[in-house]
Amino acid sequence: MERLRKFEAIFYPKSLAVVGASTDITKFGTLSLNTLIQFGFKGRIYPVNPHAGEILGLKSYADLKDIPGFVDLALIAVPAPAVPGVLEDCVAKGIAVAVINTAGFSETGEEEGVKMEREIAKISREKGIRVIGPNCFGVYCPTSGLTLPPGEYYSKETGTVAFLSQSGGYADRFCRDAKGWGIRFSKVVSYGNACDLDETDFLEYLAEDKETKIIGLYNEGVKNGQRFLQTVKDVNQKKPVIIWKGGLSEGGSRATASHTGALGSRKEIWEAFFRQTGAVRVNNLEELIDTVMIFQHFSVPCGRRIAIIGTGGGSGVDSADACERAGLSVPVLSTRTVEQLRVFLPPVGASAQNPIDLGNPWTSPSNYKKIIETTSLDPQVDALITVVWQLPFFYSHRELLWNFFQKVIEAPIAVNKDLRKPLIMVLCATPTEVEMLEAENEWRKIKDRCVAAGIPVYQNVERAVKAVANFIAYHEYQKRTKASKTNS
Amino acid sequence: MERLRKFEAIFYPKSLAVVGASTDITKFGTLSLNTLIQFGFKGRIYPVNPHAGEILGLKSYADLKDIPGFVDLALIAVPAPAVPGVLEDCVAKGIAVAVINTAGFSETGEEEGVKMEREIAKISREKGIRVIGPNCFGVYCPTSGLTLPPGEYYSKETGTVAFLSQSGGYADRFCRDAKGWGIRFSKVVSYGNACDLDETDFLEYLAEDKETKIIGLYNEGVKNGQRFLQTVKDVNQKKPVIIWKGGLSEGGSRATASHTGALGSRKEIWEAFFRQTGAVRVNNLEELIDTVMIFQHFSVPCGRRIAIIGTGGGSGVDSADACERAGLSVPVLSTRTVEQLRVFLPPVGASAQNPIDLGNPWTSPSNYKKIIETTSLDPQVDALITVVWQLPFFYSHRELLWNFFQKVIEAPIAVNKDLRKPLIMVLCATPTEVEMLEAENEWRKIKDRCVAAGIPVYQNVERAVKAVANFIAYHEYQKRTKASKTNS
Repeated sequence: MERLRKFEAIFYPKSLAVVGASTDITKFGTLSLNTLIQFGFKGRIYPVNPHAGEILGLKSYADLKDIPGFVDLALIAVPAPAVPGVLEDCVAKGIAVAVINTAGFSETGEEEGVKMEREIAKISREKGIRVIGPNCFGVYCPTSGLTLPPGEYYSKETGTVAFLSQSGGYADRFCRDAKGWGIRFSKVVSYGNACDLDETDFLEYLAEDKETKIIGLYNEGVKNGQRFLQTVKDVNQKKPVIIWKGGLSEGGSRATASHTGALGSRKEIWEAFFRQTGAVRVNNLEELIDTVMIFQHFSVPCGRRIAIIGTGGGSGVDSADACERAGLSVPVLSTRTVEQLRVFLPPVGASAQNPIDLGNPWTSPSNYKKIIETTSLDPQVDALITVVWQLPFFYSHRELLWNFFQKVIEAPIAVNKDLRKPLIMVLCATPTEVEMLEAENEWRKIKDRCVAAGIPVYQNVERAVKAVANFIAYHEYQKRTKASKTNS
Repeated sequence: MERLRKFEAIFYPKSLAVVGASTDITKFGTLSLNTLIQFGFKGRIYPVNPHAGEILGLKSYADLKDIPGFVDLALIAVPAPAVPGVLEDCVAKGIAVAVINTAGFSETGEEEGVKMEREIAKISREKGIRVIGPNCFGVYCPTSGLTLPPGEYYSKETGTVAFLSQSGGYADRFCRDAKGWGIRFSKVVSYGNACDLDETDFLEYLAEDKETKIIGLYNEGVKNGQRFLQTVKDVNQKKPVIIWKGGLSEGGSRATASHTGALGSRKEIWEAFFRQTGAVRVNNLEELIDTVMIFQHFSVPCGRRIAIIGTGGGSGVDSADACERAGLSVPVLSTRTVEQLRVFLPPVGASAQNPIDLGNPWTSPSNYKKIIETTSLDPQVDALITVVWQLPFFYSHRELLWNFFQKVIEAPIAVNKDLRKPLIMVLCATPTEVEMLEAENEWRKIKDRCVAAGIPVYQNVERAVKAVANFIAYHEYQKRTKASKTNS
């Protein structure tokens, strides 16, 4: 119960104090305060600053104890040497949780910082206040309108994705970048040096959290490896856990040490970890986004046999090569499917074989629909990827052809709701000239239409197939584990 | 001489005929005609169509022989069965080169198509007319204002990059996409089924072409493997040859057969090819663009030791991991450099070790400059990558902080001209919401500023390091080859 009350205070605080807010917007405390106001945090906010007065339109207090009401959570953004004292003040005020934004602790590698971090951990352990950080951005939770990271522009909608990040920067970038891809969050935590609450604590909580269905994690180092492994293994059976492990290279490991004080770890250990837990492994922010996106769209497992539907031969060659590089296959379609497809394809310059080539860019939308439907019914096919690279071409002839292209793009949207297999779209990124910005705008609108219709969209084939392969590998692991359990 | 006259006619025709132009813009013949007019081809253009009359404002001729003047090049876009007859007409008219856009030949895999393609090849061989195609887009050459692919929007500036593509789609997409990255072309050829002129013929020409310094190639299959290998080996010693070989997967090989009639080939053969020629291998369109871009910016070889300069610990961890995955190293800087760097870095939340962490996003522009300069002087460092992901963050606080960010971004631009080592920028891609389009516009403007200042820009670290690794590998091969020649 007590444990739950603390987590309640972390994600749904009714009131919070920002210790170290000032009038200087380039200071993180002020930035967080400004963010909370802009984002529309519904609870009470108390700025704390020795000069008191007013900050960003809110009455400020010289000390935590001067705050009239009850405070659930404190964000601490004062210089490192002052942090232990403020934490003691939090205890005195009966605050359940402190998020320590301040850096300059164990990650410095210097005695003084290590000592101060131990002091914080000791206060937490002995006085029962839970600590997130130090050296972190803290919590974003759209349901409670809370964002301590600089997230005025994060989505206000609640979703099913939780993200835990040892890096504050990646917590922020993931939330920003994921928004445009339609990813919506339940809870995000940047937990930094993890001197008290760590990834494993949050994983345990998220496993039970009703809002959360998919869990992402950026991690630089784990203190209790065995507990972490067992937790990931357990949680991953209920909810996919997608992990980006940073710092396995020599230079990367040097960087984790100075970033979050995390100790370097051997590649082999992490390889064994992924084998044993079945957690999904990703290598960078893009792959994390891409993979989370596909889990958000689809939950029913599918096999590795991909049908590709695109325009032009080169695009089909590339897509098939990319599939096979990612461990997917591009099967020969059944003779019946090929015969049926021929009816909807031009007689020359097209191909009814997988990868299917629609021929010249002027595919009729109704044929495109029929082709997707027919292909999806082939027993050799587990999932479909349709590749659309023609946007810049049609945009450059927009007076004549844009209306037509808009109809083409409606075809996959229209058929998707009745398909019984996953349909993924590659809507190729647009050229990057300033003059082509309006084409990028069209790209974004079409991407939004597809995502809203349940079709995940990727900017190139490579990204799409990696995400698809990650999704499939997760479900294959689940199936194997269940089979071995049944057998034993 | 005769041979040169033909290539002159290919790239610098003074007059050309478009056989099969009509008033239907969705037909390739008409599209090419329209493109030539829009792009501003400086020579004479003669549409040829049995109905004569006027097409897109130009007088049209019923037959090639009716054209009053001399014609250098014919673009043929009539149905396949009519192509051999038109080609004979071209011979009668004394036309040096025919570009056959029409599909429906050997790539169909059917007897009829194969037979017609043989007929075309025979006419070419016996009557001396050179043929590009069939099943291709033909030539883009900014110097002569010529573009047969749908390239109204291709750059009109001449550059140093040549591109040969068996796929018309990829010829078009490369030209479009490369434009925004500042890549400028000498000559581009989409050569399709290559029944007469093939990649090797064009490589021989480009080796001597004064405009061309870098050669890219998308290839699906080669007929005379030995001649191709020897040519690439020779040319690559003078000018980097960057090859994207499509269709090495099972599905991809099926696709090349139906796309350009190219026969599948074994992976091992191509692996040996790359080892023997030292040509640069890329796997997709993005990597081709990224790699060409770095060759366009830098020509002096450099080593594999990379210094990373970025903001925030996570970004440094990721960059170092990505470098090492790509076969680059992230060396420990010399003690002297670290000491010097400390002066320009905040005391906490930053790191003077490689990867260098500038700390919070408010790095002063003057310190940023000093840090780049100081790092570049370290004897342990061969090249520098600076990672800038903060654009969306600053954009979301633009009223207060945009001016500051613009000053930050001027720092690498200002110091680059005096650096004696390559500086590469990762300017991370912006979020994809419609509402953030203006941030994308700012991204594009900054990207253009950097590229104009000689700094290649990439949208993520992974793309940057792959390009850098390809560039280095090319020069390492050159060095090895020269060393072994000297020794023998």
